[in-house]
Amino acid sequence: MKILVTGGAGFLGQQLIRAMLGHASLDVGGKPMRIDRIVCFDQAVGAITDPRVTNVVGDIADAATVARLVDRDTALVAHLAAVVSGTAEADFDLGMRVNLDGTRALLERCRALGQQPLVLFSSSIAVFGGSLPPVVTDATTPTPQGSYGTQKLIGELLVQDYTRKGFIDGRSLRVPTAVVRPGRPNGAASGFASNIIRDPLAGLPTVLPVDPATEMWVASPRAIVAMFLHAIALPGADWGWHRSLNLPGLTASMAEELAALREAAGERVAALVSHQPDADIMRLVKTWAARFDAARARALGFTADRDFPSIVRAYIDDNPAAIKLG
Amino acid sequence: MKILVTGGAGFLGQQLIRAMLGHASLDVGGKPMRIDRIVCFDQAVGAITDPRVTNVVGDIADAATVARLVDRDTALVAHLAAVVSGTAEADFDLGMRVNLDGTRALLERCRALGQQPLVLFSSSIAVFGGSLPPVVTDATTPTPQGSYGTQKLIGELLVQDYTRKGFIDGRSLRVPTAVVRPGRPNGAASGFASNIIRDPLAGLPTVLPVDPATEMWVASPRAIVAMFLHAIALPGADWGWHRSLNLPGLTASMAEELAALREAAGERVAALVSHQPDADIMRLVKTWAARFDAARARALGFTADRDFPSIVRAYIDDNPAAIKLG
Repeated sequence: MKILVTGGAGFLGQQLIRAMLGHASLDVGGKPMRIDRIVCFDQAVGAITDPRVTNVVGDIADAATVARLVDRDTALVAHLAAVVSGTAEADFDLGMRVNLDGTRALLERCRALGQQPLVLFSSSIAVFGGSLPPVVTDATTPTPQGSYGTQKLIGELLVQDYTRKGFIDGRSLRVPTAVVRPGRPNGAASGFASNIIRDPLAGLPTVLPVDPATEMWVASPRAIVAMFLHAIALPGADWGWHRSLNLPGLTASMAEELAALREAAGERVAALVSHQPDADIMRLVKTWAARFDAARARALGFTADRDFPSIVRAYIDDNPAAIKLG
Repeated sequence: MKILVTGGAGFLGQQLIRAMLGHASLDVGGKPMRIDRIVCFDQAVGAITDPRVTNVVGDIADAATVARLVDRDTALVAHLAAVVSGTAEADFDLGMRVNLDGTRALLERCRALGQQPLVLFSSSIAVFGGSLPPVVTDATTPTPQGSYGTQKLIGELLVQDYTRKGFIDGRSLRVPTAVVRPGRPNGAASGFASNIIRDPLAGLPTVLPVDPATEMWVASPRAIVAMFLHAIALPGADWGWHRSLNLPGLTASMAEELAALREAAGERVAALVSHQPDADIMRLVKTWAARFDAARARALGFTADRDFPSIVRAYIDDNPAAIKLG
């Protein structure tokens, strides 16, 4: 089979492709399938060099481009391509084009081929926000407070309806904030939760713009990729009608993050984080959901990280080149 | 001010325009405004002849057409144009084009002018369905079971985000099934709830395709139009952040409808309804919500019909030409 990973050159996409390449065959909707080719689609070329991986560079919102990405051999589409939260808020048109039009173009192409491919849609806990209960459950109504969350929720609704109509076998995962995110900061408003671990470990000073008591719902890239593969592996019957799922994660306060950094790398590294409150970011973060009871996902066998120190250790293990101190 | 009514030639659109024409000025977002012109936009010309009404025929999904409909004088847009449930399910592309692309084209045009017009979006209780609690409340998560409900819910999300961004002052109403719907049956799967009143009163035999115990959440066109005007009149501050609202209505069983028909028009008229169960329609209707606690709407001053006999009387009063018997 052929696999398409959109946003494949991003950190999650690359980690997902690497994990897939570790298997000769992959469970897709309950059936083991041989991996013949993985198309890594993004705005830039991915770093993975493997004979089974083809890099394609282009615009996800362009229907002609998308048509070339998906063919009758494409049994699995992992749709990770997105404009992140801060960028989607700053550039409304770009967010609509990539996050909404791009998702729709991809779903339309899958539908047109009539092969009902499995489509994994990377949604986000940003579909929740505002006046929320103390713990978000599977019954909590999504009320996105930003354009990114709105566009992701619309994507979920399309995946749901395309699945109901039999056009695809869709699964949407509301992914916790990925921490520690490797590489350079991006436009995600939640970036500081990663910055305060990653940057000090690289020997760089960084800023915590919120109260250290601020909590977030997080998962390591490693745990997220494992949950992606689990979501792909499950038979459609296990999913049933409802194809959107709140993923397990951890509630981590920034103080807990800093304590884990101190434990892993020492006081000198932790001292590279300075606290400079930013009223705008604090106001935004207060609207995010930090505590979930992901009962349905747990019942389906999804699991996240054990604790925050293990998230820091996973980052150090997975990114040796990015560790200068510690 | 100028008012645009999309779907203006439909029965609700015509009744809304007539109600507007009954006022020299209209409360729009808490401010009285003089009605200079009403643009009635639809696929066909509306029946109302009034110097203040301009009929425009065209395609709501065509951006150039929509651009001509809305200008800097347009302070109010009532967006009623839609492909109905049965049609949207039978023709997926048509539903997406009219219900999703059309709504988006209209919102984009409103945004482009930078005047923040008030946009009333006619959504539907079809956003609810499937495994529902016995009574749908304001906290119940929409889980549309068809493409129509999905497209309406996406429209609500866009109205919400465009409002949050300050592009429009949007209000989405989840309208109960309109009963008694005048005219000929359309593609709405819920049409029988109107047919069994309207057709016998016109002297025509008609079919009840579901169990008489089947309940639906209904409101008269008269009550719906009054709620539209109330939704338009309320100041934005009264709406607050959340711009989608479950409207009040009545839970009516088909047996209650037939009893009200018998009471209003006699046994001979009621005998024109024959019971021919249709398994497909019954399966579909079972997924619909029939009982709501519309607490938020009631607190905002929305009210619906008193009882089903008054709905029948309102239909007879409003449609004298359609009454042949009774």
